[in-house]
Amino acid sequence: MRPSGREPNQMRAVTIERGVAQKAEGSCLVSFGNTKVLVTASVETSIPSWLRGKGQGWVTAEYGMLPRATGSRTRREATAGKQSGRTQEIQRLIGRSLRAVVDMQLLGENQITVDCDVLEADGGTRTASITGAYVALSDAIKWMDERKLTKGVALRDSVAAVSCGIYRGTPVLDLDYLEDVEAHTDANFVMTGSGKFVEIQGTAEQVPFSRDELNALMALAEQGIGELTLLQQAAFAP
Amino acid sequence: MRPSGREPNQMRAVTIERGVAQKAEGSCLVSFGNTKVLVTASVETSIPSWLRGKGQGWVTAEYGMLPRATGSRTRREATAGKQSGRTQEIQRLIGRSLRAVVDMQLLGENQITVDCDVLEADGGTRTASITGAYVALSDAIKWMDERKLTKGVALRDSVAAVSCGIYRGTPVLDLDYLEDVEAHTDANFVMTGSGKFVEIQGTAEQVPFSRDELNALMALAEQGIGELTLLQQAAFAP
Amino acid sequence: MRPSGREPNQMRAVTIERGVAQKAEGSCLVSFGNTKVLVTASVETSIPSWLRGKGQGWVTAEYGMLPRATGSRTRREATAGKQSGRTQEIQRLIGRSLRAVVDMQLLGENQITVDCDVLEADGGTRTASITGAYVALSDAIKWMDERKLTKGVALRDSVAAVSCGIYRGTPVLDLDYLEDVEAHTDANFVMTGSGKFVEIQGTAEQVPFSRDELNALMALAEQGIGELTLLQQAAFAP
Amino acid sequence: MRPSGREPNQMRAVTIERGVAQKAEGSCLVSFGNTKVLVTASVETSIPSWLRGKGQGWVTAEYGMLPRATGSRTRREATAGKQSGRTQEIQRLIGRSLRAVVDMQLLGENQITVDCDVLEADGGTRTASITGAYVALSDAIKWMDERKLTKGVALRDSVAAVSCGIYRGTPVLDLDYLEDVEAHTDANFVMTGSGKFVEIQGTAEQVPFSRDELNALMALAEQGIGELTLLQQAAFAP
Amino acid sequence: MRPSGREPNQMRAVTIERGVAQKAEGSCLVSFGNTKVLVTASVETSIPSWLRGKGQGWVTAEYGMLPRATGSRTRREATAGKQSGRTQEIQRLIGRSLRAVVDMQLLGENQITVDCDVLEADGGTRTASITGAYVALSDAIKWMDERKLTKGVALRDSVAAVSCGIYRGTPVLDLDYLEDVEAHTDANFVMTGSGKFVEIQGTAEQVPFSRDELNALMALAEQGIGELTLLQQAAFAP
Amino acid sequence: MRPSGREPNQMRAVTIERGVAQKAEGSCLVSFGNTKVLVTASVETSIPSWLRGKGQGWVTAEYGMLPRATGSRTRREATAGKQSGRTQEIQRLIGRSLRAVVDMQLLGENQITVDCDVLEADGGTRTASITGAYVALSDAIKWMDERKLTKGVALRDSVAAVSCGIYRGTPVLDLDYLEDVEAHTDANFVMTGSGKFVEIQGTAEQVPFSRDELNALMALAEQGIGELTLLQQAAFAP
Repeated sequence: MRPSGREPNQMRAVTIERGVAQKAEGSCLVSFGNTKVLVTASVETSIPSWLRGKGQGWVTAEYGMLPRATGSRTRREATAGKQSGRTQEIQRLIGRSLRAVVDMQLLGENQITVDCDVLEADGGTRTASITGAYVALSDAIKWMDERKLTKGVALRDSVAAVSCGIYRGTPVLDLDYLEDVEAHTDANFVMTGSGKFVEIQGTAEQVPFSRDELNALMALAEQGIGELTLLQQAAFAP
Repeated sequence: MRPSGREPNQMRAVTIERGVAQKAEGSCLVSFGNTKVLVTASVETSIPSWLRGKGQGWVTAEYGMLPRATGSRTRREATAGKQSGRTQEIQRLIGRSLRAVVDMQLLGENQITVDCDVLEADGGTRTASITGAYVALSDAIKWMDERKLTKGVALRDSVAAVSCGIYRGTPVLDLDYLEDVEAHTDANFVMTGSGKFVEIQGTAEQVPFSRDELNALMALAEQGIGELTLLQQAAFAP
Repeated sequence: MRPSGREPNQMRAVTIERGVAQKAEGSCLVSFGNTKVLVTASVETSIPSWLRGKGQGWVTAEYGMLPRATGSRTRREATAGKQSGRTQEIQRLIGRSLRAVVDMQLLGENQITVDCDVLEADGGTRTASITGAYVALSDAIKWMDERKLTKGVALRDSVAAVSCGIYRGTPVLDLDYLEDVEAHTDANFVMTGSGKFVEIQGTAEQVPFSRDELNALMALAEQGIGELTLLQQAAFAP
Repeated sequence: MRPSGREPNQMRAVTIERGVAQKAEGSCLVSFGNTKVLVTASVETSIPSWLRGKGQGWVTAEYGMLPRATGSRTRREATAGKQSGRTQEIQRLIGRSLRAVVDMQLLGENQITVDCDVLEADGGTRTASITGAYVALSDAIKWMDERKLTKGVALRDSVAAVSCGIYRGTPVLDLDYLEDVEAHTDANFVMTGSGKFVEIQGTAEQVPFSRDELNALMALAEQGIGELTLLQQAAFAP
Repeated sequence: MRPSGREPNQMRAVTIERGVAQKAEGSCLVSFGNTKVLVTASVETSIPSWLRGKGQGWVTAEYGMLPRATGSRTRREATAGKQSGRTQEIQRLIGRSLRAVVDMQLLGENQITVDCDVLEADGGTRTASITGAYVALSDAIKWMDERKLTKGVALRDSVAAVSCGIYRGTPVLDLDYLEDVEAHTDANFVMTGSGKFVEIQGTAEQVPFSRDELNALMALAEQGIGELTLLQQAAFAP
Repeated sequence: MRPSGREPNQMRAVTIERGVAQKAEGSCLVSFGNTKVLVTASVETSIPSWLRGKGQGWVTAEYGMLPRATGSRTRREATAGKQSGRTQEIQRLIGRSLRAVVDMQLLGENQITVDCDVLEADGGTRTASITGAYVALSDAIKWMDERKLTKGVALRDSVAAVSCGIYRGTPVLDLDYLEDVEAHTDANFVMTGSGKFVEIQGTAEQVPFSRDELNALMALAEQGIGELTLLQQAAFAP
């Protein structure tokens, strides 16, 4: 039924390759099927001016997409002179998701900027970004720990994200581009490794959805996030 | 327990005054307690270039906040030279919410732009905006009907929005600013008059939330939207 | 003769309602007929960097217009990414007009920003803005006096503004939109309560004007400003 | 009494050299004392889109200042990424002043853009610009006449401008920079060769001015414009 | 002597991997040592407006760098709101280099946009970009040939680029970052496969260079370009 | 053979008039035939933040072109809201060229900004700018010497620039606009008075060039720079 032949509750092949950017304190190349995102986490020993003197750190994120990550070329935002509303929405979401699992006091007066740059886009770029961002962030914090820049265990939990949607009447997990275009309802779930929600964004594209449908999507998301959490753990294995 | 003395499931006083902008095809002043938004709906008999020749219309929204709608003055976005990420996120949400209840074919090749300008902000500006935007939009479509610009009954349902959150451990309905600042979880619900979901945006500010907590918030939202729907209907009464 | 049926020297109904913005240190809603401007005055205990260390304060103004204040929707300046030349001209005029009646030394090292946002536009938005701005400014300075932020009586005089023009050959007072579009000459006068000039801006739209015509407009302006000054005083009455 | 030793009603030495820009249809270098402005008038056989099909032309102006036209270097507006409010105000004034003496119907569907670029600034750059702009515009229209691009005598009158002010209590003509900084009142007058007013902009810098003072400034302006009109005529002499 | 231990006339390891971007008509990942650039060539069947009706095509290039391609994070240009002067210089150079080997008539009325995005930067990003851009462009033109979009053999020659410089007194080939920072003279050479020059840019960083030194750099460049041309040919081998 | 009737190795008439801008610490009007550039050098006793505390100075350049310096009017960059890629490339080139002959340590913690504004453009605006910029810079440094702002003889050499190209098969010196448009190869050379190279930029417009052709252009450049160096010296003669 699904264009890819997947089962409704079957995720795409997900891979996380750490350490791909030589210069970054943390990095990974995360793939959800044909969606590929290069994530770097950069540690800066300075913080935004509005945080100075509060003895705490900050985590922020930026998101971009290479012009030909998409089927037809998308205009480069640097040429357009501004980030689109969509881009800003996504990078704000990534930043909030990461901050939900970081103890800012224990981070010390340091800032970590996580850059998620989409090399290829086939649906789910924001959920792949968040899932990979946790891995890169985690490595950056470990780098800080080794240099005694943190004041304790700053990471409280892991975090991952997945999208679900109602495709031709059936709730399905991890939408790819073809499904995303057609789905009547599209929801992104960000959850911690311990199974709690950090963010839910559900949108009815054309047909409003019922509470039952939302519950079905939530169940799929819980399963998917469980799988992603295991993959994140595996990525850290020696 | 709530700063305003309200019950957990008690909304603020909500008023909707139609026809406040003499020149607009539809307009209202909507108040959720001390939050006041001036909404206008403007009909234009042209459509965005990417829609031309498709025989359909479009509904879009813009959002702004007067500099002193807030406790301390906020920089004017026209002076800053761009809209903030928050502003863009909100106006995209309003636009999607309205489009979910409009049949674009029946609208004809016309565009309605809904402007939501916050005169005073005390929490819930986006939910008040959506709730008022439906009323202004509805009047604008009636204006179009009278001039035979539509091709049928373009409005499929009503739409309204409310925020809920977990304040000091208790799920509460319709957060005001004091609650919003402190709430651990903040969720915005957009629903149709017929009780279906158009949009859910739930965010854990510091502490991730459980599925039970989300269910409690959803129940509050359903009640609140029910009340708002009645108030919208009352606003149209002669 | 006038579209509104007014006498040549008859102003529109003018109302000034103080305290409409709960959070601002000073505010009013000023109406010149169907032109409605929401004015707020915001006190900030910091000053522009180029004034630091000079022991004086500053008064500045910003001007905006809601998109549907006009007969057909005007593009939002925050979306366009910049303020128009017209907007900048007007806000510079408002700022100069207010500064002409304020003693910057007695204001202390504080800045007052006056925001004039046009809710409905029917001609004379800049003159209504200045007239209302004085009222909001005055309340903000009183607020400062009560908190001992000023160093004496910083307000030296009152200030108000009115437009005059030559409409179908006759000098008339307080042009509305219909007259403004057609008038051959359009002049804005800013005067103090004591009857002196702060600013004169006279423009021949198509037909240059003579010194006699200018004198006739000045006489009308003096009368109009006299009436506005009384209305400002009345607005402060208990 | 004046820093330059001039009489109160004495203008600076004014020179107008035509034809300085080889490529422009009209041009001149105009000097008011040490203020020097290079003016070009460019004819384009297209018009702004909002004028198309109306069978008329348009005249517009742009204004700029070289970074080191001033005593200390001013930031280049092209680097800053926008024109200042002051620049926009001035170029709008120049454009209105020129349009007041041009019959747009007789200009045909052509646009003339007049560029005023200040090479050295010593007060009065906007009045020198307008005075020179008329000369460049006039040559550009003559160029059009020769090519039968106009439909008749499009120039209805000449136009020139001068500033006056109250300097140390005395009304003086044609302020230079030292006077401009200190003057209590500063007024710019734009008048036609036939002695009528096109534009008056009077501003009280610190002390409001009386009607008598304004009349004294007007008398000085009439004298100065008379002299400038003769100089403009002389510039056209073979 | 060189930080990398290379001989003066020894290039870094260069690899070119074609077809890395699934959606692009041509693409490659090009590496010059640790410098890695992802290049895509996008075919669009429309051309810039200034070329319409001339029966010819166009090739243009854009250049970007991921924020953490560098040792410390560089600000994202999309966030800064504009491309830097350096970025614009580089993308103009890439575009000119490619256009030098394409017959625009034979390309038909199509545009090819080549995007060079630097994933890792270790010196020579512009020369690696040009070298890879030729490969991606070539594949895109082959794609067009197969669809009969071209009017003949549009590629006239191959093109590649390399940098040379004087490092500690010795002319060396293919500078890496450590050498680039310290080199007294830095020159970029763009040459065709047939051994002619397309572009030379030589810059004395601190010490001006002599004609002999330039000749030595040219000889190194000719050798390096010869090697790169072979590598480009090898990349196309089945 | 050349449109101007010049010999292949004949430069246009070059004039350098010093001291044309009264307020600048150094200035000149430089002409290469009909190309005219007004150059000012401004001394500021502050330096960019990234240089603070290093005990050295800085020299930077900006470039602009009056809208009607060209045959048809070019859009003003201040109106467009940004400098073009071409402008940025040129001003970066001018800055690098000047810095190559200045000892930054001996300049003290001061910055000199050189502004090159093209009044008329007939080819070679960047080479005329550099040639004049040296003269203005030199006067500004002399001004600093007199005020003991420098720490020694900061100017190490003179610098000048000229373009050469292959026009209808013949290498020619100092291209004017008509030649520039048609030339197959266009190269700009920046050289010191002592005959060394500071910058070489050679571009094949359509036909790649050979090493022999480049050598021929270099020989022409050496001759031309020799002449320009003498003219620079003559400009300083009493």
